[in-house]
Amino acid sequence: MAGNSFGKIFNLTTFGESHGEAIGGVIDGCPSGLELNLDKIQNELNRRKPGQSEIVTQRKEPDSVKFLSGIFEGRTTGTPIGFIIENANQKSKDYSHIKDVYRPSHADFTYDKKYGNRDYRGGGRSSARETACRVVAGAVAKQLISSIKINAYTSSVGDIYLEKPYQELDFNNIEENIVRCPDNDVAATMIAKIREIRKQGDTVGGTVTCVIQNVPIGLGEPVFDRLNAELGKAMLSINAVKGFEIGSGFCGTKMKGSEHNDIFNSDGSTKTNLSGGIQGGISNGMDIYFRVAFKPVATIMQKQNTIDKDGNNLEMQGKGRHDPCVVPRAVPIVEAMAALVLADYYLLNKLSKL
Amino acid sequence: MAGNSFGKIFNLTTFGESHGEAIGGVIDGCPSGLELNLDKIQNELNRRKPGQSEIVTQRKEPDSVKFLSGIFEGRTTGTPIGFIIENANQKSKDYSHIKDVYRPSHADFTYDKKYGNRDYRGGGRSSARETACRVVAGAVAKQLISSIKINAYTSSVGDIYLEKPYQELDFNNIEENIVRCPDNDVAATMIAKIREIRKQGDTVGGTVTCVIQNVPIGLGEPVFDRLNAELGKAMLSINAVKGFEIGSGFCGTKMKGSEHNDIFNSDGSTKTNLSGGIQGGISNGMDIYFRVAFKPVATIMQKQNTIDKDGNNLEMQGKGRHDPCVVPRAVPIVEAMAALVLADYYLLNKLSKL
Amino acid sequence: MAGNSFGKIFNLTTFGESHGEAIGGVIDGCPSGLELNLDKIQNELNRRKPGQSEIVTQRKEPDSVKFLSGIFEGRTTGTPIGFIIENANQKSKDYSHIKDVYRPSHADFTYDKKYGNRDYRGGGRSSARETACRVVAGAVAKQLISSIKINAYTSSVGDIYLEKPYQELDFNNIEENIVRCPDNDVAATMIAKIREIRKQGDTVGGTVTCVIQNVPIGLGEPVFDRLNAELGKAMLSINAVKGFEIGSGFCGTKMKGSEHNDIFNSDGSTKTNLSGGIQGGISNGMDIYFRVAFKPVATIMQKQNTIDKDGNNLEMQGKGRHDPCVVPRAVPIVEAMAALVLADYYLLNKLSKL
Amino acid sequence: MAGNSFGKIFNLTTFGESHGEAIGGVIDGCPSGLELNLDKIQNELNRRKPGQSEIVTQRKEPDSVKFLSGIFEGRTTGTPIGFIIENANQKSKDYSHIKDVYRPSHADFTYDKKYGNRDYRGGGRSSARETACRVVAGAVAKQLISSIKINAYTSSVGDIYLEKPYQELDFNNIEENIVRCPDNDVAATMIAKIREIRKQGDTVGGTVTCVIQNVPIGLGEPVFDRLNAELGKAMLSINAVKGFEIGSGFCGTKMKGSEHNDIFNSDGSTKTNLSGGIQGGISNGMDIYFRVAFKPVATIMQKQNTIDKDGNNLEMQGKGRHDPCVVPRAVPIVEAMAALVLADYYLLNKLSKL
Repeated sequence: MAGNSFGKIFNLTTFGESHGEAIGGVIDGCPSGLELNLDKIQNELNRRKPGQSEIVTQRKEPDSVKFLSGIFEGRTTGTPIGFIIENANQKSKDYSHIKDVYRPSHADFTYDKKYGNRDYRGGGRSSARETACRVVAGAVAKQLISSIKINAYTSSVGDIYLEKPYQELDFNNIEENIVRCPDNDVAATMIAKIREIRKQGDTVGGTVTCVIQNVPIGLGEPVFDRLNAELGKAMLSINAVKGFEIGSGFCGTKMKGSEHNDIFNSDGSTKTNLSGGIQGGISNGMDIYFRVAFKPVATIMQKQNTIDKDGNNLEMQGKGRHDPCVVPRAVPIVEAMAALVLADYYLLNKLSKL
Repeated sequence: MAGNSFGKIFNLTTFGESHGEAIGGVIDGCPSGLELNLDKIQNELNRRKPGQSEIVTQRKEPDSVKFLSGIFEGRTTGTPIGFIIENANQKSKDYSHIKDVYRPSHADFTYDKKYGNRDYRGGGRSSARETACRVVAGAVAKQLISSIKINAYTSSVGDIYLEKPYQELDFNNIEENIVRCPDNDVAATMIAKIREIRKQGDTVGGTVTCVIQNVPIGLGEPVFDRLNAELGKAMLSINAVKGFEIGSGFCGTKMKGSEHNDIFNSDGSTKTNLSGGIQGGISNGMDIYFRVAFKPVATIMQKQNTIDKDGNNLEMQGKGRHDPCVVPRAVPIVEAMAALVLADYYLLNKLSKL
Repeated sequence: MAGNSFGKIFNLTTFGESHGEAIGGVIDGCPSGLELNLDKIQNELNRRKPGQSEIVTQRKEPDSVKFLSGIFEGRTTGTPIGFIIENANQKSKDYSHIKDVYRPSHADFTYDKKYGNRDYRGGGRSSARETACRVVAGAVAKQLISSIKINAYTSSVGDIYLEKPYQELDFNNIEENIVRCPDNDVAATMIAKIREIRKQGDTVGGTVTCVIQNVPIGLGEPVFDRLNAELGKAMLSINAVKGFEIGSGFCGTKMKGSEHNDIFNSDGSTKTNLSGGIQGGISNGMDIYFRVAFKPVATIMQKQNTIDKDGNNLEMQGKGRHDPCVVPRAVPIVEAMAALVLADYYLLNKLSKL
Repeated sequence: MAGNSFGKIFNLTTFGESHGEAIGGVIDGCPSGLELNLDKIQNELNRRKPGQSEIVTQRKEPDSVKFLSGIFEGRTTGTPIGFIIENANQKSKDYSHIKDVYRPSHADFTYDKKYGNRDYRGGGRSSARETACRVVAGAVAKQLISSIKINAYTSSVGDIYLEKPYQELDFNNIEENIVRCPDNDVAATMIAKIREIRKQGDTVGGTVTCVIQNVPIGLGEPVFDRLNAELGKAMLSINAVKGFEIGSGFCGTKMKGSEHNDIFNSDGSTKTNLSGGIQGGISNGMDIYFRVAFKPVATIMQKQNTIDKDGNNLEMQGKGRHDPCVVPRAVPIVEAMAALVLADYYLLNKLSKL
């Protein structure tokens, strides 16, 4: 109920604050017998971790995952997989100066009003640090549904767009540059943009596109738990996300039915795929693709006016080591959340018919 | 698990096919003692029902809701509220000709593959008729959270956009025209557009904008169950929805942090509201506003190629009484789903602190 | 949350009060393709229904179930199965005299305190009439897991015990007498006992034993959701149940480990079965057997002192048509709840391993 | 779904095997602002821990709980409370000899059949070591509902019974002796019994009685989630439990309604309390009391015949440090599970009425 669990069958519960001793999670419902490659899991975490390149936060966190249960002799046992990631960076700094300050467009104000008692060190639970646990669980999920291919990439940074449709891209290029855009020319422009923004002490938004291929037909649970609805929720649960569109998305609203309908080939595939691989909430075997909108990071290195707990006006300035653009590090998070949804629905679908 | 329930505390389960005897639902978790105005509930159903104007389907369904339990002497009792809506229009037509045909961009193919056994009459469970039950439950939810104001309206039909921001609109005008656009001039253009499209035997998409005002601070459950994530899921669970954006949405991705941050007034309200009333997944008391993308209705009155169960190619043409544009009837559905989410989170929030 | 749903995958939600227009339920999560014998379902309802013999309440209710959805051409479709049972007996009697009276050992007092607003007609939601919906769903569950044999029977009425172990009984005899005890001699004594009690205007308790045979190995989800724990909850959720014991039960507490351990045969079966077919919360393929304690029915035809809402003392006397002993009609309810648990765990178990 | 979580609102998820690095859990849904006394939590763990007296297992485990999140400056924050307990005793012994052996009346066989891949070291997940995590969470729950008094005690060991009704006992005596029986004379006999059994290399069962006092009226969610049903499930989810009875329990089945009904006093309390404090699944403010049956521990120090994975017969003998009687250490576990149920229903009840 309290919102720290995700998934019906393949279920992840996370815990932890950015400045506690450790964050962690429990994956429940992973079937037994799955051979787990732990290096692949750590590798996903490395894709998300701070300090990985010059265009992300320079904070240092080893982000090394330690599994405590549920794996025996290299395979899952069907019992819950508990894990922790220690917070290396949790030095007991003096936070008293920001203790009562509400940073603009952060969750300080809302957490304080909702809970009364708030861990104000570095955002506490509202910090995107929590998403490291999602990446761990997503990496397990990916191995469960290994025949399904999930590729996310940066499709825009500010007003720099990757215009090519995904069919013209080589996903092998995604990790070839630090902004995770599979077109190296566009990537270079995006990187330049982020450098420029950072110099201004500012931040910028962007979008991540995700393409899921080789999806079995039949994943998705109508009515409320349509595959698209659950993917949307998964994405909108990531920090800083403000929008989600699948298939033709917002552009599709301008089209006519005669243009938008996906006509079948005789094998059940469709000639076009404006639906984005889902009909009636259920996968139809075509590629699923969607786009996720990230707002600019709220912490900027410029002076801003704000208030404290008692409504006093004050001026503040971000310090330290923040991301000028969240999108490059969001790519593996988007993939992880997609993997969690698909693993969950993959298992659920085993129960659809006799 | 099977996806026919929505909500954690204020929980709706729906059942029923478009051509069965009745559809219905169970609302569980509504607190006792709520005085229910049944006319208001029926009125919401009337806003959704077919045949209400010349620009929607001319099918005739009285859509009259009958409550079977959970209400006593005009008030809720805290026990489940069961209700049914009879399907007046379920004449036992001969459906054998479409029995094995997969209509393009409908759920025929995916239901068949997922379940094997499919009620092919009029879409069965995948029909948007199911949303009538959501409107009933949403109308109960609205009465539970009556101080919160929820207003949805048509903000585009095809390429006809209502450009004005919501602050310049008078929501009292929404019901003044049949397309449910609060600007009568734009409404007239939209209606003309729909008429034209219908004449072509075609359909067109559109968007619905929803504005929620007077929201208590503190609604929303981080981490996975953020208020924005749950609203997104709720909207994406409506038939034909392909996109959702909240606050600055996709436009916000092009902005800088220094432009996008919402600076506080000393009372905790913010000067701008690009966040759309939610920070860290929790309502901050500002207006919540979002936009929902509807694709064009798949059933068109033109000839289309398609296939049957065995992969044979054939030509089909929609008959009968379908919506040229789903958006006018979607307005009350969007409101209902928003009300369900808010009622649920309103109750959950009572448990946040001691 | 509000307690009107049961089951994780094979999920039943019930609604309805004893004196509303109808009671009903929704079964969600039943796989598609199950051929349903509706006569068998009605037959189970008939076993529970009032007026079936001279030793149960003489109230008249046809208890005829009407399915509204989820079944097509004789088979389940994987969509929710909605059903209703009309309350024939809901004549708008004058209930004003009992409106404010709290009947001893009934739920009048607790419902009133919990909910404030209570349907006082005939117990409302707290009436055992609700269990009719469980019997419907249980009868569907039985058909889903048709290879598993579930037999419940009356094992005691007051101090009349059926002493024989279940292995010596012929379950075909259960329906041979009106008290549902498979030993006709003991049954005759039980029936005489109930007649005598009824003459006194009194009621008496009893126990039901349930034996589940041909259970697949592996059903049950440790840790909290052990098969025995879920069976216990299922039974304790039936009106008037005060105890549950499985396998050696309370007697086993007096034994030594060396006596109690079930030694294996080389095929994995065990020589004894004091465990009752479950080890570590998981079925081991041996018979599951348990015993359920029912207190005497609270409504008696004798004068009792009680109070009203305002704490005034008054004298009351039950009228009308109540069960002198609930056990004969409880037999099909126990079976239904067992079937619901087993069907649910049968489905869940499909997800245990790769 | 996979059974490692308990509670609807106040929710505990546990993880960990007896011989992994650590066991642990996540408490989600605890309201913010609760001042936590960590010493009290550790104290509850100490009541459960091995090696605490001569009549329990002499295994050494410090069982020291480490909280990782959800507590800030001594108070809960409303975010999940993650904790771990390191397994000090997990020396990498050679377990290869028992790897393929199925111990009688243990979960070895059923886990192996269900999951295929089993952590065979010391019982793995099926070990009662998991209950340490329940005791931690129960100790938090106790502090949340501190006005409710929960006292469990040993009421029988083998055939040695504490005959006195709980009203005649002084619960302050429970911790005065190592068997946790509040009557010192009976306790001495019980202790002697356990010593004798241990000398025989055998084990013995027993019962725990639990009394809950000062319960608010209104806790419990009919229909399926009655307070008694959830308490029953909670108890039956504890290792080795085979029975549960509440109020008059199995004895009540022999009574007449005229004897069993609890007649009201004018203040709403009742003259007798055969119902055990619950009517219609909802607490009525009277004491709740129930009894839990524990079978004898399966690991005995005598030779037993058993089989291995391949059905080969072999002889085995328990070694090492096991409990001759589980009941003394079960007392705090019973209390913990009762506290979890009550905390959960206490929170849920805040949502019952407007």
